[in-house]
Amino acid sequence: MTTTPTVPRTTGTGARPTDGGRPVVPATGRLQPLGLAQVRITGGFWAERQEVNRAATLGHIEHWLEAEGWLPNFDAVVRGDVATTRRGREFSDSEVYKLLEAMAWELGRRPDDALERRFAAIVERVAAAQAPDGYLCTRFGNPGQPARYTDLEWGHELYVQGHLLQAAVARARTGHPDDLLVEVARRSADHVCEAFGPDGIQGVCGHAEVEVALAELGRALDEPRYVRQAALFVERRGHGTLADIEWGRSYYQDDVPVREATVFRGHAVRANYLAAGAVDVAVETGDDELVAAVARQWERTQAARTYVTGGQGSHHQDEAFGEDFVLPPDRAYSETCASIGSVMVAWRLLLAQGDPRYADVVERTLFNVVATSPAHDGRAFYYANTLHQRVPGEPAAPDQVSKRAESSLRAPWFEVSCCPPNVARTFASLAGYLATVDDGGVQLHQYATSEVRATLPSGEPVALDVETGYPADGRVRVRVVEAPERWALTLRVPAWSGSGLLVVDDGPARQVPAGTVAVPDLRAGSVVTLDLDVTPRFLVPDERVDAVRGCVAVQRGPEVLCVESVDLPGGRDVADLRVDVAVPPREEDGRVVVRGLLVDPATAPWPYTPLRGGAPGWTGAARGSVPVEAPAEVPVDVRLVPYHDWAGRGPSTMRVWLPTV
Amino acid sequence: MTTTPTVPRTTGTGARPTDGGRPVVPATGRLQPLGLAQVRITGGFWAERQEVNRAATLGHIEHWLEAEGWLPNFDAVVRGDVATTRRGREFSDSEVYKLLEAMAWELGRRPDDALERRFAAIVERVAAAQAPDGYLCTRFGNPGQPARYTDLEWGHELYVQGHLLQAAVARARTGHPDDLLVEVARRSADHVCEAFGPDGIQGVCGHAEVEVALAELGRALDEPRYVRQAALFVERRGHGTLADIEWGRSYYQDDVPVREATVFRGHAVRANYLAAGAVDVAVETGDDELVAAVARQWERTQAARTYVTGGQGSHHQDEAFGEDFVLPPDRAYSETCASIGSVMVAWRLLLAQGDPRYADVVERTLFNVVATSPAHDGRAFYYANTLHQRVPGEPAAPDQVSKRAESSLRAPWFEVSCCPPNVARTFASLAGYLATVDDGGVQLHQYATSEVRATLPSGEPVALDVETGYPADGRVRVRVVEAPERWALTLRVPAWSGSGLLVVDDGPARQVPAGTVAVPDLRAGSVVTLDLDVTPRFLVPDERVDAVRGCVAVQRGPEVLCVESVDLPGGRDVADLRVDVAVPPREEDGRVVVRGLLVDPATAPWPYTPLRGGAPGWTGAARGSVPVEAPAEVPVDVRLVPYHDWAGRGPSTMRVWLPTV
Repeated sequence: MTTTPTVPRTTGTGARPTDGGRPVVPATGRLQPLGLAQVRITGGFWAERQEVNRAATLGHIEHWLEAEGWLPNFDAVVRGDVATTRRGREFSDSEVYKLLEAMAWELGRRPDDALERRFAAIVERVAAAQAPDGYLCTRFGNPGQPARYTDLEWGHELYVQGHLLQAAVARARTGHPDDLLVEVARRSADHVCEAFGPDGIQGVCGHAEVEVALAELGRALDEPRYVRQAALFVERRGHGTLADIEWGRSYYQDDVPVREATVFRGHAVRANYLAAGAVDVAVETGDDELVAAVARQWERTQAARTYVTGGQGSHHQDEAFGEDFVLPPDRAYSETCASIGSVMVAWRLLLAQGDPRYADVVERTLFNVVATSPAHDGRAFYYANTLHQRVPGEPAAPDQVSKRAESSLRAPWFEVSCCPPNVARTFASLAGYLATVDDGGVQLHQYATSEVRATLPSGEPVALDVETGYPADGRVRVRVVEAPERWALTLRVPAWSGSGLLVVDDGPARQVPAGTVAVPDLRAGSVVTLDLDVTPRFLVPDERVDAVRGCVAVQRGPEVLCVESVDLPGGRDVADLRVDVAVPPREEDGRVVVRGLLVDPATAPWPYTPLRGGAPGWTGAARGSVPVEAPAEVPVDVRLVPYHDWAGRGPSTMRVWLPTV
Repeated sequence: MTTTPTVPRTTGTGARPTDGGRPVVPATGRLQPLGLAQVRITGGFWAERQEVNRAATLGHIEHWLEAEGWLPNFDAVVRGDVATTRRGREFSDSEVYKLLEAMAWELGRRPDDALERRFAAIVERVAAAQAPDGYLCTRFGNPGQPARYTDLEWGHELYVQGHLLQAAVARARTGHPDDLLVEVARRSADHVCEAFGPDGIQGVCGHAEVEVALAELGRALDEPRYVRQAALFVERRGHGTLADIEWGRSYYQDDVPVREATVFRGHAVRANYLAAGAVDVAVETGDDELVAAVARQWERTQAARTYVTGGQGSHHQDEAFGEDFVLPPDRAYSETCASIGSVMVAWRLLLAQGDPRYADVVERTLFNVVATSPAHDGRAFYYANTLHQRVPGEPAAPDQVSKRAESSLRAPWFEVSCCPPNVARTFASLAGYLATVDDGGVQLHQYATSEVRATLPSGEPVALDVETGYPADGRVRVRVVEAPERWALTLRVPAWSGSGLLVVDDGPARQVPAGTVAVPDLRAGSVVTLDLDVTPRFLVPDERVDAVRGCVAVQRGPEVLCVESVDLPGGRDVADLRVDVAVPPREEDGRVVVRGLLVDPATAPWPYTPLRGGAPGWTGAARGSVPVEAPAEVPVDVRLVPYHDWAGRGPSTMRVWLPTV
């Protein structure tokens, strides 16, 4: 079922020329972002994903929102029967808004009349459901439904309105500040400020989101009231206004005030969204202490609560961070949305502070979680991203809604389907995360074949063409198309590369350490080549990550690799593989290969046996068990795949962390 | 608040002399159980726990059942306002029944007029709430409540009535077959047979329990209809009559028929209760295939899905088994009730088949999970039993209901409080699991200072006095008080001991292998001494238990030990300890001591680093991080405690699996 095209009232005032839209526009900070008209990804890994997102994923999501009734819920509000006909979870409105946001960024990236009409038709339906005072939610407050804001813990009313605001931010920044969606969002935000202002309800939403959204909408519409309300929400959290629950108030970060916390904790999506909002508020209000507090929490979270993929969250039960170093690969939750939140936080800290470590994390997370979620056809997704699949999965039917966040194969849709539209909005706006400017020049943080057409704060234009086979190839070639007299091109040298080789025009190759390297005063026509070392390497875990003691992972460039059982001979399982780390990983026909043994563990009736000598345990003669023989060992060369490609060839077992010989 | 004593109508017909009551009485099988009047625990480890259970725990539970309203719910049914006043979860009735069962066994063990009156008073209140047709549940079917059996997935109506039946079994078998409780249970069971019989609702309860209860009540009351209904429930499960849910139908074992399953799966308590019921049905109907099916599932469950403590269940989310070898110590759920279910299954298989491995598992599970749950004062409990506590817990107030199953310290009561009364009924009936008889004589399966006054199937009496300092001491001394001409005393030699030294009277010491040893034709006055080897030993895990690779555990006798941070010098954390397995554990002043190092891991900003050579990662000079020094290492001797004692000295970090040097 598709929507009937209507007159695109939402573009009635006409699009205005812009920078194409920037996802995040802080008033202050070390670096300034660029818009989707200033950075265009023109080829390679991310261009392919953007194209699939445009051509397949947006329509896929729209289809499911109609089919599952989440978009028709808005029509039901208008009809007045939503209390009896409503479908979907309490937060389903937000998926509609994330689709609108994705469409808005996509339209900012490339005009498309048909998409514009689909966008407008959805906005009309959303707008029609808004209450006269600006409140907008299909789950509460309508006749026959629970009253507004009677369940701040689980109701998600501010969360869904937050996503409405973020969609409007995308629309306003992509040339449509007078769009109907922006008008709707403005009225919703005004309502929120009224209802939850200094004299209003002294509460916060169980799921952080409205903070980052209000801050960004305030910036986009030059409305400081919204930023002040965001700041109020940030300050108000952590004082236990939400109910204590089975998992504690840390679940929704209401245990400790943001500026007093020492680490991200509780529900991983909520924690990241809150942190992103806190940084937005902090840079807007010049609150260096708050930026520093979030940065400290981020440091410990990266050091002790993040998977090698960049994924976060090891608890299925509460979709939450575990304690420090609780990072089991086979129970990794690593929700796609948590990683999108992690990218949001790292990007904001990068803009605020300029440290290339933040860009390292953005890269790691994009390649190894966000890119892992969607299937190559853009019509199925991982919600959770395990690092160890012990049993081959069963394919979901294309028309089946998955009940299981932790499905072992990508699923077309979920009963809780936050991740697909979150991926869509991220991919549509991805170019906004590649480059920045400052008074000194242009910084390239992420590498993709792309065109950068920036304007420095001085007003001087800089134009760059970037060519790279990244991540398959580590060579990045930057051609200067236009440049001022005095400026510098700053390139990130990723930590995984250790160092890079830099060549400017016909100059000598120069080894540059990981971090950043600035090349001054390049002229139009100059070419800078940065060679990064994508040699595959074994990684060893900190021994406090107990769950992967004695294992290695393999990384090549920014990509974490994995072993799939489909690549093992004779139908063997990944559990049987032991890797020989004395033989470095090598490359063969475009695949990374490791040397190892396939072992055949003897089946014992009890898996815990005395170390040596002493009692024979259950394998002893007295029990009449089968005698334990030395396991058969078969030498094997195994071809790995990038983790983001796993399960692309059907059901398999898989592991990222590989036990050693 | 205590209940007002009433005339003990429930004992109106007077107690009848019995064997003291046997928890499980199969019609057929390799071994025959003994009653609580035939085996009495008179001293030592379990006698202490039985006494605390009697003197403290029963009253503690009764207090909370009143205070939380779970017992008053029955009064509310009588008043007619239960729909509006009811408190507690949908299954709270079952905690009342488990308390009644515990009281009944306790009264079977030792008459106590005061306890008898308390028991009778509760039974009166329960009985008053029963519907005229026998249905009994405070959560459904009363005016204003949802109709009966409209939520088989989550309603627990058959589950709670099952526990009613089990309480009645205890009462009937301890000399009160005409008790009011038995009458109530009979009417409930009749109702269940009517409602769910061949022509009734073709469904099963989301939580198995009524199967084992109906089978046992049928045996106790000589009512084969109940056994047939139990068999019907067992056969009916596994055909997907319950709804698919987020965790799949395996959650309630409705994915695969019992006789086709290959392993225990899903919710660990449900899986064990179902298996226990299946064995009961199978031995009652001579269904060897079904016994063999459960035994096969049990084998794999022990080999791949059981913690070293005997605990089961590694998923917090669904309180479920994980896949094979998913046994993370720091996310162990290991619910106390699951272990009680595991004991129920192993005991039934032992009676059916006689294999001492089942008794090994009973022992392991009793000492290391069931005994771990209650505090020494019997007034606080673990619900979940983690094997690795990373952060010291915070004490719960004595009057506080814990929302958290995974509390890091024992809590007085839980919002879901299945475990405390489950421990109580197990401790009260514990003597029933120590010994059996068969045509050939008496078998001792569990060792405790005790008196065995058995009658062989031939009618000949056997009397034994057992003395032991078990588990602190491995010597078991059995004095024959009375014996027939021809018989044998069979003693279990636990697998952990490897072998034992057997001395009969003044005879020579003879080494006997793990398993069982039969000593024939002992005369009154003879003394058999079995010396078991309780030397502490390191255990190594099967390498497929990925989460504990490179670690050892320490076991001494039947007790698994652990390290607590309160035993480390200078406030160090258990995370810092590395054990030197070249030095065997030794004993010092009654404590087991291991040699190790305290390491001081350097804090790194990112926990995954290249194996060697290659890129320096985030610790490289380019990042300006602190230089990585060799961690400081301090040799240390660490005193361990039995796992069941952990947190007995207040908050601490703790681990069972210890990384090696």
